[in-house]
Amino acid sequence: MHAPEPIPPFPAGPSCPLPVTPREAVGLAHGGGGEETDSLVRDLFFRAFGPPEPVADDAAPVGDGRWLATTDGHAVSPLFFPGGDLGTLAVFGTVNDLAVSGARAEALTASFFLGEGLPMETLRRLVSSMARAAEAAGVRIVAGDTKVVPAAAGGAAETCYIATSGFGRLVFPHQLSPDRMRAGDEILLTGDVGRHAMTVLAARNGLAFAPPLASDCADLSPAFRALLAAGVEVHCARDVTRGGLAGVLAELAESARLSVAVEEAAVPVAPAVRKAADVLGMDPFDLACEGRAVVVVRAGEGEKALEALRAVPVSAGAVEIGTVAAGEGARLKTALGTERFLRRPSGELLPRIC
Amino acid sequence: MHAPEPIPPFPAGPSCPLPVTPREAVGLAHGGGGEETDSLVRDLFFRAFGPPEPVADDAAPVGDGRWLATTDGHAVSPLFFPGGDLGTLAVFGTVNDLAVSGARAEALTASFFLGEGLPMETLRRLVSSMARAAEAAGVRIVAGDTKVVPAAAGGAAETCYIATSGFGRLVFPHQLSPDRMRAGDEILLTGDVGRHAMTVLAARNGLAFAPPLASDCADLSPAFRALLAAGVEVHCARDVTRGGLAGVLAELAESARLSVAVEEAAVPVAPAVRKAADVLGMDPFDLACEGRAVVVVRAGEGEKALEALRAVPVSAGAVEIGTVAAGEGARLKTALGTERFLRRPSGELLPRIC
Repeated sequence: MHAPEPIPPFPAGPSCPLPVTPREAVGLAHGGGGEETDSLVRDLFFRAFGPPEPVADDAAPVGDGRWLATTDGHAVSPLFFPGGDLGTLAVFGTVNDLAVSGARAEALTASFFLGEGLPMETLRRLVSSMARAAEAAGVRIVAGDTKVVPAAAGGAAETCYIATSGFGRLVFPHQLSPDRMRAGDEILLTGDVGRHAMTVLAARNGLAFAPPLASDCADLSPAFRALLAAGVEVHCARDVTRGGLAGVLAELAESARLSVAVEEAAVPVAPAVRKAADVLGMDPFDLACEGRAVVVVRAGEGEKALEALRAVPVSAGAVEIGTVAAGEGARLKTALGTERFLRRPSGELLPRIC
Repeated sequence: MHAPEPIPPFPAGPSCPLPVTPREAVGLAHGGGGEETDSLVRDLFFRAFGPPEPVADDAAPVGDGRWLATTDGHAVSPLFFPGGDLGTLAVFGTVNDLAVSGARAEALTASFFLGEGLPMETLRRLVSSMARAAEAAGVRIVAGDTKVVPAAAGGAAETCYIATSGFGRLVFPHQLSPDRMRAGDEILLTGDVGRHAMTVLAARNGLAFAPPLASDCADLSPAFRALLAAGVEVHCARDVTRGGLAGVLAELAESARLSVAVEEAAVPVAPAVRKAADVLGMDPFDLACEGRAVVVVRAGEGEKALEALRAVPVSAGAVEIGTVAAGEGARLKTALGTERFLRRPSGELLPRIC
């Protein structure tokens, strides 16, 4: 018998020169999708995992460049809310990341972190939701993994996190990306904003709104299939999730090194969302959706795009909200005729919204 | 302006007929990689996410069948241990799942669940480890996501989970899989077993062994590149992780509907691991590794395979441990000449080992 030789341990190596303040710790704001998340991603992850520096797109090309890969962790609290649950989010969130990149989701993988003591019936309901959502989106869940972890401070009944990764085939002629944006492009929004965040917030805090709210959680891929079928020249798209519409527009302007200008009056907000946001002192532009996208199309293509989008249920409420121009920053023209810059939200606005 | 129409909520639908005992809850054993994990996967996930029924391989084909996708969640406790840490596990675990399937990892995605209060310096160290491990394995981390969750009962300093997914290109002529196994095949093991589990167990419980133990955590892909370069006809392979060698062999026999017979005396176990296992009443065959694989090659290819494996450091200790035959079950021939069946371990043997 050949004697086993010891394997050298993985080299400890010099510490990476990543900028970390010694006593700094992870806070809720780091998961909020605003300034703090962005800074964590740029200062830590991008520096560690480059070069080449990863791009801030929703999906990354792999292989021959016609395949895209994406991942999203889901840790919404509560696990169930009107219009969806952790399972539907976990599937649609990843399908949507591929759809807004111009790809058709071909396969998902799902990795579960289950708190010890999580009722099996809860898990069963979430897994059933995932199966139904995957069927609705026409995507297969091809691989999975399960780990059991100690229950979180919130209690065993709530400790369930799902990371889904998606692997998709590019169906648009090119990946939809901010570097395709040009001055003059028209900016569309596929529906009203803020319902998902306000629904989860209400469910978490036992708030009741009249009329009752339901999350907009949905598969966005039919909207992109419609745009493709209509031959619309789409330059870029983003699903409006953490960070809200303000975050998406600020990021697009920054990544494209262009200015985007939108009309406040053009952005649909459900009356119940607007009322609740007023009461809670929140800006609907900062609120996450889970079934809405910003779509940037070539100048002159707006009407054709709206017609295509309005023909499918998930984007029946599509509207044009603004245009791209030279310059920088995301500007909002208010109903009063004034103008303000839109920025990524910051602080612990709404943790565990997805 | 086009008024937004409400999106119908995702249909609640009838409950999936998945068998769950009403008061059943997730227990540590469900994450142990033994009988309970297997039952959760088969009774819940496979039933929900089929048809076609997913196969119990380490990676699943997507697209044209030459791409493989895999995912693994990592929740090891403690986060750092001799020979590795959560970050190295998260990269090598996924690279290894692709390697044992016959694929070369092309891209990884990483989804982080960070406990509120996790020291940023801890995260920085883990991310640095991931970057170094990815560089060593020649794979890029192309997409990521971060969510912040409440700290677990174990405390904020320990609450960090990483789900990695991998996309790989098949480099072997076919996916390595139990359905390729044939009677007469030779069974190889790339090195000694049990060091990872015993190292983590020692680190978790403040045990000291002489000589000191280090995890076998490593990138297995050089071993498979060597087999490919040598033209060895490999039928199947599995990395030996949760469930240990016993679990892997039992699963291979079951999936292949064949019998596997291995010689106990042929299986290398480091003296410190054997001693610790004796003291703790554990069977080294049940203990997880993170840098070891079982490789099943065509009858007559064993010697050539061993020569190839021993030429690379990660599998320098490769040995032949048994053969495949008609029949069923995994049989262990002991040094005393007796025979016993190997089974998947069950119970809360070693939670959070990876």
